[in-house]
Amino acid sequence: MPQPPLHVLLVCSRPRRPSPALLQHPAIGELSVVTEYGHVHDYGPDTAVATVRDVNDPEAVRRAAARLFARRPADAVLAPYETGLPAAGYVRSYYGLPGPGTETVGRFTNKLAMKRRLATAGLSLAPYVAAHSPRQARAAAAELGWPCVVKPAFGGGSKGVAVVEGPEALERYLAADRALPAGTPLLVEEFVPMAAEYHCDAVVERGEPRFACVSRYFGPPLGRPGALTGSRLLPGDHPERAELLELHRRAVTALGLEDGVTHLEVFRTADGGTLLSEIACRPAGGPIPDMIEHRYGVDLWDTHVRFSLSLPSELPVARPESTTHTLNVLLPVRPGVITELTPAAELSALPGVRSVRMLHAVGDLVPEELYSASATGFVHAEVATDAEVDGLLAELAGRFTLRTKPVDGSR
Amino acid sequence: MPQPPLHVLLVCSRPRRPSPALLQHPAIGELSVVTEYGHVHDYGPDTAVATVRDVNDPEAVRRAAARLFARRPADAVLAPYETGLPAAGYVRSYYGLPGPGTETVGRFTNKLAMKRRLATAGLSLAPYVAAHSPRQARAAAAELGWPCVVKPAFGGGSKGVAVVEGPEALERYLAADRALPAGTPLLVEEFVPMAAEYHCDAVVERGEPRFACVSRYFGPPLGRPGALTGSRLLPGDHPERAELLELHRRAVTALGLEDGVTHLEVFRTADGGTLLSEIACRPAGGPIPDMIEHRYGVDLWDTHVRFSLSLPSELPVARPESTTHTLNVLLPVRPGVITELTPAAELSALPGVRSVRMLHAVGDLVPEELYSASATGFVHAEVATDAEVDGLLAELAGRFTLRTKPVDGSR
Repeated sequence: MPQPPLHVLLVCSRPRRPSPALLQHPAIGELSVVTEYGHVHDYGPDTAVATVRDVNDPEAVRRAAARLFARRPADAVLAPYETGLPAAGYVRSYYGLPGPGTETVGRFTNKLAMKRRLATAGLSLAPYVAAHSPRQARAAAAELGWPCVVKPAFGGGSKGVAVVEGPEALERYLAADRALPAGTPLLVEEFVPMAAEYHCDAVVERGEPRFACVSRYFGPPLGRPGALTGSRLLPGDHPERAELLELHRRAVTALGLEDGVTHLEVFRTADGGTLLSEIACRPAGGPIPDMIEHRYGVDLWDTHVRFSLSLPSELPVARPESTTHTLNVLLPVRPGVITELTPAAELSALPGVRSVRMLHAVGDLVPEELYSASATGFVHAEVATDAEVDGLLAELAGRFTLRTKPVDGSR
Repeated sequence: MPQPPLHVLLVCSRPRRPSPALLQHPAIGELSVVTEYGHVHDYGPDTAVATVRDVNDPEAVRRAAARLFARRPADAVLAPYETGLPAAGYVRSYYGLPGPGTETVGRFTNKLAMKRRLATAGLSLAPYVAAHSPRQARAAAAELGWPCVVKPAFGGGSKGVAVVEGPEALERYLAADRALPAGTPLLVEEFVPMAAEYHCDAVVERGEPRFACVSRYFGPPLGRPGALTGSRLLPGDHPERAELLELHRRAVTALGLEDGVTHLEVFRTADGGTLLSEIACRPAGGPIPDMIEHRYGVDLWDTHVRFSLSLPSELPVARPESTTHTLNVLLPVRPGVITELTPAAELSALPGVRSVRMLHAVGDLVPEELYSASATGFVHAEVATDAEVDGLLAELAGRFTLRTKPVDGSR
């Protein structure tokens, strides 16, 4: 096992620069970076950077890594975010480096490989068909019926995921650049009306969940633009918890993860059944890792870095389950220039709010492309009863104001 | 499990067009092919072909496969020869198709990943250092001492493998195009004088060798240009057999193969120890599969096709071990235009010779680049005693004549 501090190859993509806390992780002694064209200057003068056109091409990333390794080979590879994970796994397997390899990571990032494996293991999924061409996508949608859900085989944060109401909407989706880039398959899924959506976040060590918790989203992450979103941790005695933890365990076993941080999404259907949506081998996006650290003292980001470098997890004993209601709220966002935004202090003063972290301020330009974790800010709260959860959400919705104007200056 | 006949994606490279017997395998109903630029016309009008610049780029092969899948997705992927194996495994894993995936195939094709894993499992290897640049190769050679062996991390048939006597020879090697193409690592190994070299050929099913046999090369495959080469099967009661079969079993377990055909190469060192050289997850090259089919009735090529398509092996019960000496001989070859070559009939008449298969005839142009299985022809023989083996090899060496002239016409 390598001994820190390590020379780490970081695989990143265009939209997200890793946080300083991640770049300064104590296990990382020296950093080399593969990222996309134009992002050399995101990193300091002590960091060797090689760039590729598309981080979704694992062999291109590997060849860029070879240029960096010609200077000095790395001890380990780290991809903090979804987009870089497949290439990081590929580079690890190619060079025999420790940490999750290309097949394992592939089963957690490529929804086609993931669903085939989960279905074989007998887990319930929404019926789906893989499409490799617009023609196949049309045939799949006609077979599954309208509305249906379309999503690229790769990508996190609901990127490119759409509920398609009918043939015309499908044509609009297929005409967009994002459909089938570089031959990426498209998954066409039956639209299953859901009663609730949950996420399970866990630390898996030697194939077994060593820490796991379950949360329920306030509403589904797709389809409610402008509303408060977020989730609340289910307390330890919640009746649905055991069933969802068992689903997570079965998914991890089916996909063959040894050591990793996972984020599973599950739907509850109208008839009370469960449907596994997808599972990632990285910390959840947005404020979820913070919520979990606040509540349990478990640092998912530190654990993800440590497992990526094949170091022991060094998990603390998680704080015991309690009946407290812990929640995270994403303050809504929309594209444009922000002209008015409720100050953090006003939200912090509400009863139960533990912290408010604003990601935007008045004057910011919010880009067109938003993800499921996009927000103007994150609110973390702890309250004693179900009624207080509802009360706080109503208060936040009432107090929060966001005004934007289009970039061209008109309102 | 898919039911034949299947739509099979074949991954091929420039130098080798698959044999008609392979293309017409009964499990293959429809064929689509990814091969390298310029080889579309190697296949018939009923075969969809997409080409790539370099079949060693798995993502490029995958994107070419996506173009073929847009017409009709394949059920399975087959790479007959070493060069296409990594891309075939990658495409299988990407699309969740059955058969050996990218990590498994990677451990049997990428000598760096292979050796790291075998060393971790405690198997004896020649000391080696991975080099990602000419500078690192020089440092590695200086560390390991002269002579040393250099080889690219990928490639079968001893392609690019060289014994390097000293710094000048290393510079000549590094200056050649073949060194470090596309950032492929170079392995620099200590040169270990060997007393003998063996190969073990096997069928592994559910992680266990179900059929395995051991052969001894007449001489090492490198370094004796112009001599008769080949190998002889060790009879069932041979004292070295059990040790070498156990080495094979340990290597397969260490690399995690479920189902596949393997070809292992092992050195016997001067002090009587063994060194594992490398192991492939495909049938051996040259006449070895024929020798094994003659002797045991086990068809390694059929088994490789079936496992690649995730079909059951349908192995016959191997014929029992006996004390017969079975051997294959490669008739030497060298670049140039063949002006004289011993006729097959003359060699067939020798006592013990069962078949002679000529690969070349007078007038043929033999290309510059030769592999360990390159030959003017293959001789298969069975004799009763050790003395008869030596006698037959001496007879063959005495009878066989090859004359060539340079391509420019001078002698």
